[in-house]
Amino acid sequence: MKALVYHGPGLKSWEDVPDATVDEPTDVVVRVDTTTICGTDLHILGGDVAAVTDGRILGHEAVGTVVAVGEAVKGFAVGDRVLVPAITRCGRCSYCQAGMPSHCQTVGGVGWILGHLIDGTQAELVRVPYADTSLYLVPDGVSDEQAIFLADSLPTGYEVGVLAGRVRPGQTVAVVGAGAVGLAAVLTTGLWGASKVIAIDSNRFRLDKALEFGATDVVEVGPDTVAEVIALTDGLGVDVAIEAVGYPQTLLTAAALVRPGGRIANVGVHGAPVELPMQDLWIHNVTLTMGLVDTVSIPTLLTMVASGKIPAEKMGTHSFTFDQIDEAYDVFKNAAANSALKVILRP
Amino acid sequence: MKALVYHGPGLKSWEDVPDATVDEPTDVVVRVDTTTICGTDLHILGGDVAAVTDGRILGHEAVGTVVAVGEAVKGFAVGDRVLVPAITRCGRCSYCQAGMPSHCQTVGGVGWILGHLIDGTQAELVRVPYADTSLYLVPDGVSDEQAIFLADSLPTGYEVGVLAGRVRPGQTVAVVGAGAVGLAAVLTTGLWGASKVIAIDSNRFRLDKALEFGATDVVEVGPDTVAEVIALTDGLGVDVAIEAVGYPQTLLTAAALVRPGGRIANVGVHGAPVELPMQDLWIHNVTLTMGLVDTVSIPTLLTMVASGKIPAEKMGTHSFTFDQIDEAYDVFKNAAANSALKVILRP
Amino acid sequence: MKALVYHGPGLKSWEDVPDATVDEPTDVVVRVDTTTICGTDLHILGGDVAAVTDGRILGHEAVGTVVAVGEAVKGFAVGDRVLVPAITRCGRCSYCQAGMPSHCQTVGGVGWILGHLIDGTQAELVRVPYADTSLYLVPDGVSDEQAIFLADSLPTGYEVGVLAGRVRPGQTVAVVGAGAVGLAAVLTTGLWGASKVIAIDSNRFRLDKALEFGATDVVEVGPDTVAEVIALTDGLGVDVAIEAVGYPQTLLTAAALVRPGGRIANVGVHGAPVELPMQDLWIHNVTLTMGLVDTVSIPTLLTMVASGKIPAEKMGTHSFTFDQIDEAYDVFKNAAANSALKVILRP
Amino acid sequence: MKALVYHGPGLKSWEDVPDATVDEPTDVVVRVDTTTICGTDLHILGGDVAAVTDGRILGHEAVGTVVAVGEAVKGFAVGDRVLVPAITRCGRCSYCQAGMPSHCQTVGGVGWILGHLIDGTQAELVRVPYADTSLYLVPDGVSDEQAIFLADSLPTGYEVGVLAGRVRPGQTVAVVGAGAVGLAAVLTTGLWGASKVIAIDSNRFRLDKALEFGATDVVEVGPDTVAEVIALTDGLGVDVAIEAVGYPQTLLTAAALVRPGGRIANVGVHGAPVELPMQDLWIHNVTLTMGLVDTVSIPTLLTMVASGKIPAEKMGTHSFTFDQIDEAYDVFKNAAANSALKVILRP
Repeated sequence: MKALVYHGPGLKSWEDVPDATVDEPTDVVVRVDTTTICGTDLHILGGDVAAVTDGRILGHEAVGTVVAVGEAVKGFAVGDRVLVPAITRCGRCSYCQAGMPSHCQTVGGVGWILGHLIDGTQAELVRVPYADTSLYLVPDGVSDEQAIFLADSLPTGYEVGVLAGRVRPGQTVAVVGAGAVGLAAVLTTGLWGASKVIAIDSNRFRLDKALEFGATDVVEVGPDTVAEVIALTDGLGVDVAIEAVGYPQTLLTAAALVRPGGRIANVGVHGAPVELPMQDLWIHNVTLTMGLVDTVSIPTLLTMVASGKIPAEKMGTHSFTFDQIDEAYDVFKNAAANSALKVILRP
Repeated sequence: MKALVYHGPGLKSWEDVPDATVDEPTDVVVRVDTTTICGTDLHILGGDVAAVTDGRILGHEAVGTVVAVGEAVKGFAVGDRVLVPAITRCGRCSYCQAGMPSHCQTVGGVGWILGHLIDGTQAELVRVPYADTSLYLVPDGVSDEQAIFLADSLPTGYEVGVLAGRVRPGQTVAVVGAGAVGLAAVLTTGLWGASKVIAIDSNRFRLDKALEFGATDVVEVGPDTVAEVIALTDGLGVDVAIEAVGYPQTLLTAAALVRPGGRIANVGVHGAPVELPMQDLWIHNVTLTMGLVDTVSIPTLLTMVASGKIPAEKMGTHSFTFDQIDEAYDVFKNAAANSALKVILRP
Repeated sequence: MKALVYHGPGLKSWEDVPDATVDEPTDVVVRVDTTTICGTDLHILGGDVAAVTDGRILGHEAVGTVVAVGEAVKGFAVGDRVLVPAITRCGRCSYCQAGMPSHCQTVGGVGWILGHLIDGTQAELVRVPYADTSLYLVPDGVSDEQAIFLADSLPTGYEVGVLAGRVRPGQTVAVVGAGAVGLAAVLTTGLWGASKVIAIDSNRFRLDKALEFGATDVVEVGPDTVAEVIALTDGLGVDVAIEAVGYPQTLLTAAALVRPGGRIANVGVHGAPVELPMQDLWIHNVTLTMGLVDTVSIPTLLTMVASGKIPAEKMGTHSFTFDQIDEAYDVFKNAAANSALKVILRP
Repeated sequence: MKALVYHGPGLKSWEDVPDATVDEPTDVVVRVDTTTICGTDLHILGGDVAAVTDGRILGHEAVGTVVAVGEAVKGFAVGDRVLVPAITRCGRCSYCQAGMPSHCQTVGGVGWILGHLIDGTQAELVRVPYADTSLYLVPDGVSDEQAIFLADSLPTGYEVGVLAGRVRPGQTVAVVGAGAVGLAAVLTTGLWGASKVIAIDSNRFRLDKALEFGATDVVEVGPDTVAEVIALTDGLGVDVAIEAVGYPQTLLTAAALVRPGGRIANVGVHGAPVELPMQDLWIHNVTLTMGLVDTVSIPTLLTMVASGKIPAEKMGTHSFTFDQIDEAYDVFKNAAANSALKVILRP
């Protein structure tokens, strides 16, 4: 089969590799019909993720068709159309049983193993371990181009942003950073009845997208960002500030936007420490959450996409075939400049 | 009446002042039968709390007897034995109605006004605004020496530590810092069924107290503190780490102790920023909470003290009369050296 | 002033009575600009509510203007446009502090006292006790004709139906009975992201309204009601069944619709016992909730009405002036036949 | 192997049957070291459980040793000492993933299949399907005689009583019926900080046990039961009433004990409808919960037993060997008369 193989920092190639196979009775092999690229894949290529070594097939998001099943697999059969999420779940460790497979102790202490600790989804075939507890059937009425964004981006914005932020009816929400994951948060705040959703970014294309995705207000980043956002509230700040970038400054902005008793939900992947002004914050009864996605919200999100209430397909701005994968990476790498959110890759 | 008046950094005196009176129909005047000193009072004397100005009567904790009531007060009558908590609650603003009077918008944006924005409890008489929604009757069977610690220390350890930390049955809890507030957390973790409570401090007297207050394990601070605590768990860390000191290092220790998916409950009052290692923490699905006490747990705590399940009186290690208040401050200021937790002051 | 006075079962008259006045320092007098009639008012006239005696002014819902304030009232001033909710809240008893003023121990063990234990709102003026903790300012952008339904019907459907039923994103909800309160539930399920809302009634007008109010499906009552509803789910039943009628049969229908692990939220006012099939139900892990509205959701609902997300004005189908109040009662009494939901009464 | 085989109503025999074997790759075979008898087994012998047919091996509780594992089993190995709980969990259906395996859709729509839909644990060997997600390792420091009661009774009292009842610190709890499951509730209310636990029964032995298990008060059933219990509260009733019998009268008693806003947790297995006084209850904001145990609390309970905080061994009052199983049934059938709670059966 063909697959995108990592060969060290900056190096990748779409090349022939041995076919994925069922190695354990709990495995399934999926033929990849649609995949995409994640910001994390760019981090890997940048050499920032030491656990990914030469020879690893990249990618952790796919929609595909089951082509082989291990003998212990009961929930899936050859021919099923399935969603392969970013997180693999053993289903039995204490973290999986608590609904937090992001820290599955069985598969490696972290639930993200595809395209990281084992071969991934940017390939014609992919082996999925613990298939019964990891895969999801894609219901009729949900297209591949919708489902693919439920593998990682949408659940990340929803779980790590909206759910961890505990958005509740009537509340005001600020989303700092309107890239793919920030927009995923914008798209799903309505599930919890937010009255006002304020998107903040420096890129006009993204702010326009935010309005299209359900933001009620947008603020272009500038010297008065915090004051402008607070002026859109009752003067005390937002109930929930979602950080969807991953820089010290954006987290500090989120912290400055939140009212006493509010919540800061960090979604961004950070590469450096953040000097938190605890001397001011301690008294404000705020909560700061952070985390890797669990993908356990996928059934809810699939239902909402199927019912027409979440237009997930809007996340995909560009389409490519597998043999154009280098071009797809180039477009995605310069997403803002290319007016791109997420790319779609198909055979 | 006599009262302890602040006269600028380092200056206080027990002196004659005009009697406290009912100024608003919602006021009550309480004769102070028991009061105590809080770490915050030391901060004020240190000149760290700019809002406290020359002439202010200090103190925000009291047990006393109602001697006068405003005409709108329905819930209290002259002669009632009452607890005056650290937080004043208007009862009608959105924060009070949400159970978070620590940010009461009516009394000043912060619910702590006694001995801060208005005259306080280290006096023979104290005026209590919004008495109906702020005071609590002390039930028979709860002594003054027990109730006084429910004015601030115990609810702080309980609400900002145990409740914000969401301790749940079977969980492991670390308490970083076994001073009065840390010990208050230790004393109340049992209400939520913690299986293991690990107290961490550099002072042996405090660690012994921690064991007496219900800690199952103690760790003396040293180069291997984190490793020792983690060895007391399943190797992943504690479910809840309560920070009860207020220094960068103690917060970082708390953050290092908590397992993936766990919670860090900051109780300490911070005076400086904290450089948080977000590059490591972001992926751990941890939650960091912080805040000022609301004192809304007082009814629960009074019930548990009355039922004999919380020996609140153990918090008081030293007793003084009002005219020994300078000596009381000296002992409390050097609490660790004096094997002191909290002092009791009575007429 | 003029007011609608109850004179025993079946008897009421719009007559002259003494003006409402400030009797306690915590009172406010409101000039009624808009009021409405509740199903409970019909029960009173039917003689079913023994606590209501001859001479009582009826009504417990109003939007109006403050014309006098007691001296302890801090939150409202003469001229303020306010919502007078069905529930009066002392703000200090344990029930009020727990957010359940429906059982305020101070005002009578039940928070509904207007037009019940004290004079009510179907009058030119009304005295509102505990005004600071009971009244709500009506924000600009919310009309009287919208706000009036937030006094009782909308919070009832929302709190006792949607909130008690714990509707969550992606869930299916059945509403048994599409009268005013059932439709209030339909109108507010979207705040919690329901994927499917099935309204059940025998009246076609009401089912059409349900679709207009946000129901995704409607089922006309018949021999196969339960089967038809379950066929709209995955075969196991709905997550939440809201009962909004108050008869044994409708509660049993709700119980038959709910899936294992689901919730039955009883909103209906019952007049007779219900023989619950516990021999079948006990194993199903279902929860049955019931209750009187607390009206504590009014701030959330006002925000959502102001933001255009809840078209509350749709509840009002007929308008009358105060001197047409007998006609208004007649129309409301035969609401289904008159294609009426709620009536609006104005001076 | 030897096993207790059901042969129709009233008929059972300890007889030779074929050895249990690994039939599916996800199976484990456990050698039974300790088992017990449940009230449900008596119902089966009474002919009340139609799904149990001639030839079925009874029993759904065991502690034992793994003697064979299927090839897909990763979490358990031959020689492991394990707890076999009453509930079998596939781990992948929506109910299992929601933490409610009592309604596992894979194993039969109900998670209780051992000794019901498949052969059970009153045998020398038992096959356990979906072992990875169903079994629990018994930690060192927990004896067989403690662990056995975590297979069903203790989790039932805890989950269906204490957890569903949402007992919280400072609350008052009444437990109607102090049999094994009622006492299990008594034993675990302390995990959530109940201030007062009132046990109600007609049997003195059981009331004495209740005091030994942590009840603060006991009430012997009589004409004034309700009044006596309410007198032990503030006059409004208990926060949580746990029904642990399963008769209409006991459920009605529980409903009569609960205060406005309180919770009735039905644990009892009912055989007849209950005429619920909805005309009185609807206004009381009470919640009625019911259900089959999920056994998902077993890790918490094992931790608390290991830490010495739950003396689970006190549930076992009588011990027998396997070949005395008929005698064990006789004693258990007349538990109250024999001053028995639970029996222990060992090879």
